[in-house]
Amino acid sequence: MNKYLSKKARSITPYTAGEQPEIKNIIKLNTNENPYPPSPEVLKSIQGEAGKLRLYPKTDGGVFRKAAAEYENVEVKNIFCANGSDELLAFAFLAFFDPDKAIKMLQVTYSFYPVWAELYNIPYALAPLNKDFSIDPASLYNSKGGVIFPNPNAPTGIAVSVSDIEDIVKNNTGYIVIVDEAYSAFGAKTAVILTEKYENLLIVKTLSKSHALAGLRCAYAVGSPDLIEGLERIKDSFNSYPLDMLAQAGAAAALTDKAYYAQTSEKIINTRENTKTALKALGFDVTDSVSNFLFITHPKIAAKILMQSLREKGIVVRHFDKPMIGNHLRVTVGTDEQMDLFLKETAAILAGR
Amino acid sequence: MNKYLSKKARSITPYTAGEQPEIKNIIKLNTNENPYPPSPEVLKSIQGEAGKLRLYPKTDGGVFRKAAAEYENVEVKNIFCANGSDELLAFAFLAFFDPDKAIKMLQVTYSFYPVWAELYNIPYALAPLNKDFSIDPASLYNSKGGVIFPNPNAPTGIAVSVSDIEDIVKNNTGYIVIVDEAYSAFGAKTAVILTEKYENLLIVKTLSKSHALAGLRCAYAVGSPDLIEGLERIKDSFNSYPLDMLAQAGAAAALTDKAYYAQTSEKIINTRENTKTALKALGFDVTDSVSNFLFITHPKIAAKILMQSLREKGIVVRHFDKPMIGNHLRVTVGTDEQMDLFLKETAAILAGR
Repeated sequence: MNKYLSKKARSITPYTAGEQPEIKNIIKLNTNENPYPPSPEVLKSIQGEAGKLRLYPKTDGGVFRKAAAEYENVEVKNIFCANGSDELLAFAFLAFFDPDKAIKMLQVTYSFYPVWAELYNIPYALAPLNKDFSIDPASLYNSKGGVIFPNPNAPTGIAVSVSDIEDIVKNNTGYIVIVDEAYSAFGAKTAVILTEKYENLLIVKTLSKSHALAGLRCAYAVGSPDLIEGLERIKDSFNSYPLDMLAQAGAAAALTDKAYYAQTSEKIINTRENTKTALKALGFDVTDSVSNFLFITHPKIAAKILMQSLREKGIVVRHFDKPMIGNHLRVTVGTDEQMDLFLKETAAILAGR
Repeated sequence: MNKYLSKKARSITPYTAGEQPEIKNIIKLNTNENPYPPSPEVLKSIQGEAGKLRLYPKTDGGVFRKAAAEYENVEVKNIFCANGSDELLAFAFLAFFDPDKAIKMLQVTYSFYPVWAELYNIPYALAPLNKDFSIDPASLYNSKGGVIFPNPNAPTGIAVSVSDIEDIVKNNTGYIVIVDEAYSAFGAKTAVILTEKYENLLIVKTLSKSHALAGLRCAYAVGSPDLIEGLERIKDSFNSYPLDMLAQAGAAAALTDKAYYAQTSEKIINTRENTKTALKALGFDVTDSVSNFLFITHPKIAAKILMQSLREKGIVVRHFDKPMIGNHLRVTVGTDEQMDLFLKETAAILAGR
């Protein structure tokens, strides 16, 4: 490692983002993108804003913040907007977690969490999952520094109920519980309603998946004004303007077109359930994912081999070389046509063809 | 301060961004925005990209990174792209500065630097300026942790020469020197050429001012591959995708339309010099700014009073309530028409009208 880097830059192991391969006619099922385009309102709104680019954007998300408040039926002071949920969570780790207090996260979880913990020297304990990857809510009780977990969990897709979340929040009095609802639009219940009652609960949502806007980098958090203030203090000590004007306008438009996204999410849920059934028929063990991806393993073929074989056929899925999940693949739910091809090729690989 | 915040979030004093007031017919000379619109190529390019928003953007800036390399006549591996130079500098503090080694910055400087230092617990020493705010290069020699300064300096607008910068770099062997060239397009000489020779020099540029893209949040750094790697390691431990697709496309288009921006920068320089002369005739002391703003003080009226009087007339300028510069105002160079009005109203205020 080179000599000009700080100790931190030298020691840290950065997160590895899902690959964006440049393969022609690729079927891209590796980064949980939405297979349908964003609402046409998004493009209109972006075009309307483009003439003002010489000016600085609003520091707080502007129209995006207002639209998110309306969407979630809360007040603007309950909303914090950021450049994707990764940035939001990076701020949250610094805003709410302390270097001398261990937080709790799940044993199998979004793999960026330990990276942020390392970045800011925040100790953490791993809460064990059940054998089938389901979550025991009690494993997240009584943290001594805060809790963070995705719901549904990533990369398993398995969700806990709102009442489980309430129990987790109640059993972490004095510490913040962050629920990362990146994938909650595809069948899990959002716990936003609980933020009215519990000032130590922060819900994080992104428009990358549900609103087909991975390319625009828009996320928001819902929580008590105290928590929102904490996020603002950190943002304003880091970068006053993380959300550009076009992102603010596009995100606001997306949140307003509820009918369009209700339709695309429903299509994705239907495709997921059909794919689940077909995969089980092929002998796969499939978790009960309520997300826009499936988490699968097969008794007769190693996950890594299957991934490589699929890639040779132009189908890209994600494999995590990590404890407990090294023999699983995460497969994004694409269109019906894409999943039919994925199933056909998978069947052929299993049949040795 | 509320109990859920980390010690850091409680203790820090965030940066205060320039106000974006909602006043009708305002003449906005407070945040150094470019008075001319961005190149028409920017809007075309953004429209061309908007159809792909469901996909994740490139993690490294993509076409923006390539365009910046071409623009600076360096290789892609010498370029790092970020969401505005504030984000870039926030990454740089973490990538190159250590909590046990004091860095050097100027006594009067961009007021975000001390905020990042505080955020990451980086000690710093202030290098004194000459009485007329000019910089003594030797004051930045022999740091024990690195150096950061803007060239031209903010908010004075005064620049040092490339050979001064070379001396500063040579006299900080083993430590990084970061030159923040946010305003270098308006008459100062860029030191990018030195990055070929010195592996400890990082030059940071933004498209917010020179390319009229404050609303799009695009900046880049030029430096040795070792330094670029350091920035990448921190970015990938924080947020893999800080630059959305539209920003990448728009920034690339802007850097390509050199003729357009040569023209707008020249107009701004002309307006600045004319305004300088007129202000001096009104009795102002005006620094030798080579930026797109003027830094002024008057023996007969307090800066704060002048700022308030101008605001009543719909003209907004920036005042910094800080040591050494509390009686100065920073005035963005707008169009000729805007500056004529600014001069007219200023003259009226001075005449007690």
